[in-house]
Amino acid sequence: MNDIRPIAMTIGEPGGIGPELAIKAWHARTEQNLPTFCVVSPKSIIDKIVDVLGLKTPVKAIDDINQATLFFDNALPVLEISGNADGAKLGMASSTTASIVIDSITKAVELTRSGKASAVVTNPIQKSALYQAGFKHPGHTEFLAELAGSGSVPVMMLANSQLRVVPMTIHIALAEVPKHLTETMIKQLVRITAQALQRDFGLPKPRLAIAGLNPHAGEDGSMGSEEITIMRPAIKALQEEGFDVIGPLPADTMFHAEARAHYDVALCPYHDQALIPVKTLDFHGGVNVTLGLPFIRTSPDHGTALDIAGKGIARPDSLIAAIRMAADMARKRAAQHPSQGA
Amino acid sequence: MNDIRPIAMTIGEPGGIGPELAIKAWHARTEQNLPTFCVVSPKSIIDKIVDVLGLKTPVKAIDDINQATLFFDNALPVLEISGNADGAKLGMASSTTASIVIDSITKAVELTRSGKASAVVTNPIQKSALYQAGFKHPGHTEFLAELAGSGSVPVMMLANSQLRVVPMTIHIALAEVPKHLTETMIKQLVRITAQALQRDFGLPKPRLAIAGLNPHAGEDGSMGSEEITIMRPAIKALQEEGFDVIGPLPADTMFHAEARAHYDVALCPYHDQALIPVKTLDFHGGVNVTLGLPFIRTSPDHGTALDIAGKGIARPDSLIAAIRMAADMARKRAAQHPSQGA
Repeated sequence: MNDIRPIAMTIGEPGGIGPELAIKAWHARTEQNLPTFCVVSPKSIIDKIVDVLGLKTPVKAIDDINQATLFFDNALPVLEISGNADGAKLGMASSTTASIVIDSITKAVELTRSGKASAVVTNPIQKSALYQAGFKHPGHTEFLAELAGSGSVPVMMLANSQLRVVPMTIHIALAEVPKHLTETMIKQLVRITAQALQRDFGLPKPRLAIAGLNPHAGEDGSMGSEEITIMRPAIKALQEEGFDVIGPLPADTMFHAEARAHYDVALCPYHDQALIPVKTLDFHGGVNVTLGLPFIRTSPDHGTALDIAGKGIARPDSLIAAIRMAADMARKRAAQHPSQGA
Repeated sequence: MNDIRPIAMTIGEPGGIGPELAIKAWHARTEQNLPTFCVVSPKSIIDKIVDVLGLKTPVKAIDDINQATLFFDNALPVLEISGNADGAKLGMASSTTASIVIDSITKAVELTRSGKASAVVTNPIQKSALYQAGFKHPGHTEFLAELAGSGSVPVMMLANSQLRVVPMTIHIALAEVPKHLTETMIKQLVRITAQALQRDFGLPKPRLAIAGLNPHAGEDGSMGSEEITIMRPAIKALQEEGFDVIGPLPADTMFHAEARAHYDVALCPYHDQALIPVKTLDFHGGVNVTLGLPFIRTSPDHGTALDIAGKGIARPDSLIAAIRMAADMARKRAAQHPSQGA
């Protein structure tokens, strides 16, 4: 399928499962109807994993992403970047390959921003190894936001075929959550999420549902007051701006099939409230999408899984879903701005 | 099926959906292979709902629960209690019927404690209406615990065919949750839950999984310290006591099918963490079981639903599941103490 420009996939942590998943995704290209993608990496990393896995895989080094389309049917295209990968060891994150990991992300973003690639799909990184090598960003997404330029506010959305969720707070202690919840934050997240669903998900009038912070959404203040003091005013203001947003809803009764039919995305005050339903419904097929960037970025919804790297047992479901979702988003965006997709 | 003594079902709020569900459950008795049950209520309440629903239902008043078995195939047995139900109005909770609601619970417990009934299945009550009439207990379960006598610590478990969960805290604001979590509480909940699963669920060595409070179970203290200071010491002590208990586990990755296969019950620090997965997996078939009482008590996992009472659209799935679960528990208990089940 060459209706969109190739997808630029980052290598992620070479000692993790990312390279293995890229190879497995390429093998599944026909069965899964995948668009052309190329891995941005020194070819040696891919060659090594092919060897370890014993999975016969032609790998083609290219120096221009346009060539990916020519070779994709018959070989896994690798857009070569320089770097010494000798320090990479499966099952270990290494700071010696940090520059490769970072350069791969930088290059993939550059290709996408310039319109040569249609989207970035990132493989998991190991932050600790990057920090040892001087990486200064709190995480993968923040680095991408910096590459995207000023004014970008990245918003994490988890999505599978049954549910989309946006956690309003992410990696903070539960006790900190109530302090972080503000009207301003809720409004900003709703605006960014709604815009992204319109532009990249083909939803002209996206329906957003907001989960309450407290059990039963506080039950009129009898179990916590944040719904009354923060959430309802934010939602009311957003409704007045024209957003199709409802809530705060009791979180426990909003994720079964009948309830999900009433909205396109659920915004949840904290990590587990958002991630429990999406991972319970489909553990392997979840995709992490970063909204609010000027380019499309998806990622598998798992980490580097160092413990199983190189064993051949890592499941590519989530990476495949991330590739498919990136391609769907690129098509939606291209349909609105045809010159970008041709 | 008369292998166990009849189940005593309370009437619950007469203005809610309870009476309607009792009638619908009786109609489903053959298809659902239900054990004999009787409703503890003035017969007039049931007669009125039968009339409103237009669902032809023979109702048989009895004054001894042993008679329920004789009539169950051909009529819905109602163990008559006195009380004037004229004030009952569908769609409204009324304090005028509070004494009926309370007497029904008291009688059902008395029958079960004396061994004449095998279990109590309770229909939903409306606490506000009972408070107006002088009811002094924080809730349904606390009232049952008082009827059970001193020393009973009731523990709420939600269960469906796929998952059992015990919320460690229930109806409190999210901001209060971290303060309530203690080693003592975790230990007590694990002991009561394990004992109940052994006695009433046929699990000689129950496997318990405990969810972390924080995202990723705190990730070694980087997002909250309660896992380190409270949860791990409690779990270690319980393991030393011989319990098969694991955790604290990241809550978002413990509820998909493969993860659920590793435990029999999940204990979760707060309401939504426990109730989101169980209600997402099976919204209509969930059962509320009270562990830690000297008698068996189950309940549908929903409220009085005043807004749809009398409309004929209330689904009896959860009440039917509650009856079946009570019967299964009674059989398990009887198998251990044959004299109680004959």
